[in-house]
Amino acid sequence: MLGERLENVRKNTPLVHNITNYVTVNDVANVILATGASPIMSDDIEDVEDITTICGALNINIGTLNQRTIPGMFKAGKKAKELGHPVILDPVGAGASRLRTETAIKIADEIKPDVIRGNISEIKTLWTGEGSTKGVDADIADRVTDENLAETVDAIKALAKERSCVIAVTGAIDIVADADKAYIIRNGVAEMGQITGTGCQLSGMTAAYVAANPDNHLEAVAAAVASMGLAGEKAKNGGEIMYSRTGVQEGNSTMRNRIIDAICNMTGKELEKGAKYEII
Amino acid sequence: MLGERLENVRKNTPLVHNITNYVTVNDVANVILATGASPIMSDDIEDVEDITTICGALNINIGTLNQRTIPGMFKAGKKAKELGHPVILDPVGAGASRLRTETAIKIADEIKPDVIRGNISEIKTLWTGEGSTKGVDADIADRVTDENLAETVDAIKALAKERSCVIAVTGAIDIVADADKAYIIRNGVAEMGQITGTGCQLSGMTAAYVAANPDNHLEAVAAAVASMGLAGEKAKNGGEIMYSRTGVQEGNSTMRNRIIDAICNMTGKELEKGAKYEII
Amino acid sequence: MLGERLENVRKNTPLVHNITNYVTVNDVANVILATGASPIMSDDIEDVEDITTICGALNINIGTLNQRTIPGMFKAGKKAKELGHPVILDPVGAGASRLRTETAIKIADEIKPDVIRGNISEIKTLWTGEGSTKGVDADIADRVTDENLAETVDAIKALAKERSCVIAVTGAIDIVADADKAYIIRNGVAEMGQITGTGCQLSGMTAAYVAANPDNHLEAVAAAVASMGLAGEKAKNGGEIMYSRTGVQEGNSTMRNRIIDAICNMTGKELEKGAKYEII
Repeated sequence: MLGERLENVRKNTPLVHNITNYVTVNDVANVILATGASPIMSDDIEDVEDITTICGALNINIGTLNQRTIPGMFKAGKKAKELGHPVILDPVGAGASRLRTETAIKIADEIKPDVIRGNISEIKTLWTGEGSTKGVDADIADRVTDENLAETVDAIKALAKERSCVIAVTGAIDIVADADKAYIIRNGVAEMGQITGTGCQLSGMTAAYVAANPDNHLEAVAAAVASMGLAGEKAKNGGEIMYSRTGVQEGNSTMRNRIIDAICNMTGKELEKGAKYEII
Repeated sequence: MLGERLENVRKNTPLVHNITNYVTVNDVANVILATGASPIMSDDIEDVEDITTICGALNINIGTLNQRTIPGMFKAGKKAKELGHPVILDPVGAGASRLRTETAIKIADEIKPDVIRGNISEIKTLWTGEGSTKGVDADIADRVTDENLAETVDAIKALAKERSCVIAVTGAIDIVADADKAYIIRNGVAEMGQITGTGCQLSGMTAAYVAANPDNHLEAVAAAVASMGLAGEKAKNGGEIMYSRTGVQEGNSTMRNRIIDAICNMTGKELEKGAKYEII
Repeated sequence: MLGERLENVRKNTPLVHNITNYVTVNDVANVILATGASPIMSDDIEDVEDITTICGALNINIGTLNQRTIPGMFKAGKKAKELGHPVILDPVGAGASRLRTETAIKIADEIKPDVIRGNISEIKTLWTGEGSTKGVDADIADRVTDENLAETVDAIKALAKERSCVIAVTGAIDIVADADKAYIIRNGVAEMGQITGTGCQLSGMTAAYVAANPDNHLEAVAAAVASMGLAGEKAKNGGEIMYSRTGVQEGNSTMRNRIIDAICNMTGKELEKGAKYEII
C-alpha cells in the first residue's frame, strides 16, 4: 500500500546524501524535510565517502555536473553500493549534451543505481545512447500518451531488466517499472512544468522512500511519484484561479511553495486515497 | 509595442542558457519559466558548447565567478556568437574587486555581448575600467536622478555605440539605450532592493526577450525591464501594508514570491498599459 | 539591550561577505537584507581578499566545502582578521566527516574567528576533535536540556575562553557565551528544524549584528539568536494550524517565507519585548 510507504519515511527518518545541482538544491532539501527525512549535501571528493557512510541512501543528480563534482559522484556511488545503500540517479539533461549523456550512461554502467528517475527523453537516451532532450525538458516527440503507453511500458520494463533497477519516467503520465511490473500513475497537473525542479525534488524524495522501504523499492518509488503528483493537484486546487490579497494572481512561485507545503502535511491515508494508478 | 515583445516570448518559448551565480539561480530559473521561456543552467567547460548550441540565447552573470566557471563563460560566449545567438552580460559586482572588473571588461571586449545589464556603478566600471560599486549594489554617489539624467543618457548612448550593444542600467530610474535611442523607464518600487537577485532575474528574462525578438533588441530589453518594474509594483500594491493571517507582516520573502507570480500572470496588454516610459 | 543591537544593524547597514554553502545561500542573502544589512557572496581565491576588504564582517560556512572553496575561506579569513573585521564560523556538519571536522578545527585554530555558531554536536566536535553529528543535525545524545544545562554552559564558557571568542550553540535551548557570561535564550519553535538553513541564516545575521555592534559582540550575538527564535514564533503563531485558501495546509515552505518576513518587519522594541532569556 502506497500510504504505508510514506508512513515508513516518517517512522524511519532516513538521512539522504545528495550530490545535486545548485539550481534546485534548496527545494530538494526542503522537500526531503517535508516528507519526513533529513537531507545532507556534499559533493567534494574528500568528503563524500564519509557522508554517504552515515546516510541511508544516495541521490545523484547531474543537473549542473562539472569536472569537480563528477569524480565525487563516482566515489560516493561506489561507497554507497559497497555499503548496500540504495543509489538513485537523476540523469538531468541526458541527451542534451555529450557530457551529460556520457556521464549518465557511465554512472548507470559502473554504479548500477537502484533507481533511475527522469523524463522520457532522458530515459530514452540511457537505452539508445543518444537523445533529443529539449534542454532539461522532454522532447515533445517522445511524450508518453495513451496511444504509445503499452509499447513504452514494455520498453521501460526491458530497460529495467537490463539495468536491474527500478525506472521512473515522469511526465503527464508517469511509469514506474521493474522488469516485471509497472505502475501507471496519473496524478499531477500541467502547471508543475512551470516550476523549476519538481523532478529534482521527486528524486530526492524517492531516495528517502527507498531508504525507508528496503523491502519493496518498486512500491516505494511509486508512492514517491504519486505523492508528488498529488501535492501538485492539491497546490492547484482543481484549476480555480487564485488571487492574493494584493490582487496579484498566484503563479508559479506560490505553486512551488504550496507543493512543498502539501508534501509536508500529506498523510499516508491521504496518499492512499488520492493516488490514481493501475498496475500492469 | 512592449506588450507584443512579451507575447513573442510566450509564442516562441526560447530556451535560455544561463551561466549564473549560485545565490539567485533558482529565482532566475523560475522567472524565466514565469515569463514563458525555458531555462537551462550549465557552466562546465566540457558542457557549455553543446548546451548553448541548442539554446536561443546565453545569459552570463558573474555574481559568483570563479576559476572553474570563468573559462566556461568565454567558451560558451564564443560559441553563442559564432552561432548568431544573442549574449547578455550581467557584470555583477564589477568595480567591487579586481577579478570582477577585469572579467567583466574581458567578456565585453572578447565576446561582444549584445546586451549588458547592470546597476549604474557596474556599468560605469565598464567604461572607466574602475569603479566604486558597493558590494553588489550601486554606489549612492553614482545614482541616476532627474538632475543627472540627460548627461547619464548621453554617456550610456556613447558606451552603447562604442560597445555596439544595448545597455540597460537599472535602478530607481532605468535607462535602456543603444547608440541612438534611449528608453527612460519609471516602473518599479524601492522594496525590490530588499530582495536578492531582482537584477539577476531581469538579466535572465532579458535573454528570453531578445531571443524571442531578434528584430528589435532595444525594444525587447525595454519590455523586459518594464515588466520587472511593473511586477514589483503589483507585488507591492501601492504601498498598502500587508499582514498574513498569522499576524506576520509580509516582508521581502513574500514580495519575492509575488514578483515571480506577477511575471507569471502578466499579459502583453497589461504590460503595454502599465509600462511608464519615454523615449529620448 | 537586545533591541538596540537590531537598531544598530538598520542604522549601520553593514556589508557582509559570505563564503557559504550553495544549499541555503539564497535564504542567507534574503535574511541579511531583511535584517537591514547587505550581503555579498564571493568564494574564489582571486576574489575574496578584495571583497572582504570592502565589507564589515566575514561569514564562513562550511556546509558544502570543497577543494576549490576551502583555500578561499582561509585567504578571506586571514585578510578579514588583518583588517580587524569580525569573522563568524559556522562549522556545518563538523563531526560528520573527517574533512568537515579537520577544516572547522583548522579555521578555528588559524583564523581565530570572533564568533562560532553551530548546533551542540558541531560545537562539541570543536573541543573534542571528534563528533557524532547526525548529518547536519545535532545528535540526540548531545541535546541541551534543563538537566544538563549548567554543565553545558560551563563547558561552552571554557571553550569560549580557550578560543577567545563568542560561542553560540543553538537548539531548543540556545546558549550564547564568552569566557565569563552566558545568555540562555528560550525563543523559537520546533518547526524551525523542518526548514533547511535556519542555522545558516542565523550565522549570516550574526555577522551583520557583530559588524554593526563592535562594542559588544556577546550581546550582539544574543540579539541575533533571539531575533531568529522570535521570528520562528511569529511565523508559527502559537501553533494554530493554518490553511491557504486552496485548502493546502501551510507547511515548511510557508514557514520559511514567514520567518524571513518576520525578520524583515521586526523592530528593536518588538525584539526587546519578545526575547526570552536569562544571563548566567
